[in-house]
Amino acid sequence: MEKINLAQKLALFSEHWSPKIIARLNGQEVRLAKILGAFDWHHHADADELFLCVAGRFRLEFRDRAAVELAPGELCVVPRGVEHRPVADEEAHLLLFEPADTLNTGNVQSARTHAVLETL
Amino acid sequence: MEKINLAQKLALFSEHWSPKIIARLNGQEVRLAKILGAFDWHHHADADELFLCVAGRFRLEFRDRAAVELAPGELCVVPRGVEHRPVADEEAHLLLFEPADTLNTGNVQSARTHAVLETL
Repeated sequence: MEKINLAQKLALFSEHWSPKIIARLNGQEVRLAKILGAFDWHHHADADELFLCVAGRFRLEFRDRAAVELAPGELCVVPRGVEHRPVADEEAHLLLFEPADTLNTGNVQSARTHAVLETL
Repeated sequence: MEKINLAQKLALFSEHWSPKIIARLNGQEVRLAKILGAFDWHHHADADELFLCVAGRFRLEFRDRAAVELAPGELCVVPRGVEHRPVADEEAHLLLFEPADTLNTGNVQSARTHAVLETL
C-alpha cells in the first residue's frame, strides 16, 4: 500500500518497448513503457488492453480503421483480437492496464518480445 | 475503440462521491470520481482497488497505518479486505480501476451507495 509516483517510476528506465510492472491487482497489471517509432503489428487473443498517454503523443494504428491519436490524459481500450500497433514519432510515455499474463507482442514473436517483465 | 479524454469526461459531471464508468476491459472498469470531504469507512471483500489522482490532492486513510497522500500522477492500490476511506480537504478528481461489480461503499450501505453507475 505504497504511493506510486508515475514520473518517479518513469525516471528509472530509458529503454523503449520494454514495459515495466508498477502494480498488480485483480489478476491485472499496471505497466509503464517508453516508446519511439513503430511497434510490431500484433493482437492479443484473450486480453483487452488499455493505453493511457502519460507524456508525449502517440497513435494506435489499426488495420481496418483510422488511427487513434493520444495526448497526455487520453486513453483508448483495444479489445482482444484487434490487430494494432503503437507508433510514436517522438518519444512518448504510456501506462498500460492488462491481464498479468499478457505478452507485449501478443501473437507475434520478435526481437521486442519480453516474456518476463521487470517490476519497478 | 474511441479516444477517451479524462478532462472532457470530468467536465460532464459535478457531483461528489458518484463514480462514472468511462471504460470496460477484462471484467474490470475504469471509473472517474470527484470527491470532497471524508467518505464512509469500508472495505471490498473480493476486489483490489486502484486510485489514481488526476487533479487536486486527496489521501487514503486506513485504520491501522499511516494515510497515503496522492497528488496528480500518483496512484495507490488498496488490497481487498483492507478498510479504507478517501478524504479530500479540497475537491479532487480521481480515476479508479476495479472489478466491474465493485460497489463504491464496499461492505457498507449508506446514502452514498450507488448500486448502478452511470456510463459516460
